[in-house]
Amino acid sequence: MKAISVLGSTGSIGTQTLDIAEEFPNHFKVVALTAGRNLPLLVEQVQKHTPEVVALADESLIPELEERLKTIKAKSPEITLPVLIGGPDGLNTAASWDTADLVVTGIVGCAGLLPTLSAIKAGKDLALANKETLIAAGPVVIPELKRSGSQLLPADSEHSAIFQCLQGTPWAETARLSTGEKTPGLRRIQLTASGGAFREWPREDLIKATVKDATSHPNWSMGKKITVDSATLMNKGLEVIEAHYLFGIDFDHIEIVIHPQSIIHSMVELSDSSVLAQLGWPDMRLPILYCLSWPNRLETPWKRLNLKEIGQLSFSEPDTKKYPCMELAYSAGRTSGTMPAVLNAANEEAVAQFLENKIHFLDIPKLIDSACERHKADLNTSPTLDEIVSVDNWARHAVREQVNKQAITN
Amino acid sequence: MKAISVLGSTGSIGTQTLDIAEEFPNHFKVVALTAGRNLPLLVEQVQKHTPEVVALADESLIPELEERLKTIKAKSPEITLPVLIGGPDGLNTAASWDTADLVVTGIVGCAGLLPTLSAIKAGKDLALANKETLIAAGPVVIPELKRSGSQLLPADSEHSAIFQCLQGTPWAETARLSTGEKTPGLRRIQLTASGGAFREWPREDLIKATVKDATSHPNWSMGKKITVDSATLMNKGLEVIEAHYLFGIDFDHIEIVIHPQSIIHSMVELSDSSVLAQLGWPDMRLPILYCLSWPNRLETPWKRLNLKEIGQLSFSEPDTKKYPCMELAYSAGRTSGTMPAVLNAANEEAVAQFLENKIHFLDIPKLIDSACERHKADLNTSPTLDEIVSVDNWARHAVREQVNKQAITN
Repeated sequence: MKAISVLGSTGSIGTQTLDIAEEFPNHFKVVALTAGRNLPLLVEQVQKHTPEVVALADESLIPELEERLKTIKAKSPEITLPVLIGGPDGLNTAASWDTADLVVTGIVGCAGLLPTLSAIKAGKDLALANKETLIAAGPVVIPELKRSGSQLLPADSEHSAIFQCLQGTPWAETARLSTGEKTPGLRRIQLTASGGAFREWPREDLIKATVKDATSHPNWSMGKKITVDSATLMNKGLEVIEAHYLFGIDFDHIEIVIHPQSIIHSMVELSDSSVLAQLGWPDMRLPILYCLSWPNRLETPWKRLNLKEIGQLSFSEPDTKKYPCMELAYSAGRTSGTMPAVLNAANEEAVAQFLENKIHFLDIPKLIDSACERHKADLNTSPTLDEIVSVDNWARHAVREQVNKQAITN
Repeated sequence: MKAISVLGSTGSIGTQTLDIAEEFPNHFKVVALTAGRNLPLLVEQVQKHTPEVVALADESLIPELEERLKTIKAKSPEITLPVLIGGPDGLNTAASWDTADLVVTGIVGCAGLLPTLSAIKAGKDLALANKETLIAAGPVVIPELKRSGSQLLPADSEHSAIFQCLQGTPWAETARLSTGEKTPGLRRIQLTASGGAFREWPREDLIKATVKDATSHPNWSMGKKITVDSATLMNKGLEVIEAHYLFGIDFDHIEIVIHPQSIIHSMVELSDSSVLAQLGWPDMRLPILYCLSWPNRLETPWKRLNLKEIGQLSFSEPDTKKYPCMELAYSAGRTSGTMPAVLNAANEEAVAQFLENKIHFLDIPKLIDSACERHKADLNTSPTLDEIVSVDNWARHAVREQVNKQAITN
């Protein structure tokens, strides 16, 4: 029986994690939940999973939650109510909760950083879904991981694929200790990319791309922001940076391959030139379950892959002119220090501006590039967490300001 | 430094193994060689690898080999000549040679059985290329493996692919001990098949298939017999039986998938529905090297896989009417006991008769089916090695007799 904490329990990763916990009641017990503002769903989750502690980011909502839980208790007196805590300290307490074996970090954005670090400092293993943890805060997180010996388990499908392929290789034997260091036996990582909403569009048509066009993903059903990231291929760029930290591999040895069917979730080339791949239907539950069950696997009744039915898998080189975000990400990753934090924050802000119809689709990479260029003079090669958060704020502000001034140049 | 013995050193597996030993002189040392009749090549190998012992199947050739080696010694006095031994006992002695860590079994056919068993009894790890070891002699070999604790390492590309995919799964932890038993965490094996020479031929045209047609393989360069086995898909049928023994998996959970590009060398579906695949160019050196370096991997300069260049991988269901040999193999495997030995021997003899233009291509499955049918009355469910060899002889004889009597029925 593994005890798990779910940070961001009402979000997409959180709800899928709890679905899995419900599907495997003999394997997983939920001991801690943290959530934002969705109290009705949170109360349902508390009823079903009876965690020991619940933390709310917004402390002011605690009385309301308390009231709702009292009503539940009145109806079902056998339920043991959780300890309720709030605010940043509350999140950190829940993230490092003593009885938890594994913490699922489903909080989106910089808000997830501090609780994730608390979990690492407490030596908890981590199912990592909060991408800022490594992309923006890699320079702070990696040394903490080394100190605490926490095992990072990637919860997204691409990095999970790589992680699965690397089990049983010399990499796996040293991984817990060598996070961020050069990986034995691993020669190249190939991240597959569906190509996103504009895969079939000629480059010159992208100028006409609307929000509706950009938020229709061909394979995966995801939030709007991440669907736009798929359309710009920034999602792959960010995954490249994450892969660099997770698997201790140079940027020169991480490649992106367009694979429209999204069946091969990623590949590794080993030193002897053998290539291993992980395949499956596009279903986020699989990588999440693997985080939870690792190093074992559980029996699922989920849809089985049938390649004979699919018939064909195809692969091609991504068009770097059509997708400039990829190169921006490689460049920020290579620069390292605070640059990936700027890239990530500028991208989030630019996508938000696009979703509000304030900029064109093609302005997204321009705004990111401009923020990264301006940050060069202020680059901090070994930032603290506070400095990373401050740079993140600066980049968001810089993008907003440029949009407001209508100062996007070609 | 791993000490290896190569049984069948002048054959295809043997020469490729020695090429690898030469490429990695700091990792492998050749301590024993056995060969058939190719003395010039054997002498070259002795000069290059200076093994401790050399065994010849045909004892009468020893004086000639001795003479040739004396000439070498006269020219290069620094060479230490090997001990020379001959006959069946000589092969067994070389196969169980004390200083060897790993034995590569490249002897083709039933002649390879006894030396392979000697290696197993001596507790040596085995790079298995002799398919009779498991297909015909599974019932004898499996208990010996359990007793001795030898590790079987598959040297053909399909089983190596599966073996590579299973490293790092619960299967791998128990494999050394549980050979032949049900495998934890492994739900299905998918063996890929190129489809062989007649992949694009309509079923009704096969009646016209000539020896030349059947011996032109689209992807792999192999011997004539195995190329015909690819054309009938009997090679896949035999691999199904081998996979059953190697990975302890029911026949119901082994599938054949037609994959014309031969890039995915096979796949495993794990219990959680995740699928792992191993990919590479069709090159026998890779699985042989993995046997030698396992559980590690060595750095090679071999051609790297580039899926972007290949563009497309395709998959389809094999046509059981066009390829009846597959079903014959599944059926013999399920019957078990001496039946797979009959299937294998009848196939070898039928292919030999086809290669001599004595029968049609479509007679091959008919002859095998007929031998298997006739053997049903004499099935031995737990045969000794002698009984297996005797059944093998019977099946070859039965096929020859049927051909000579021109008694092949539809």
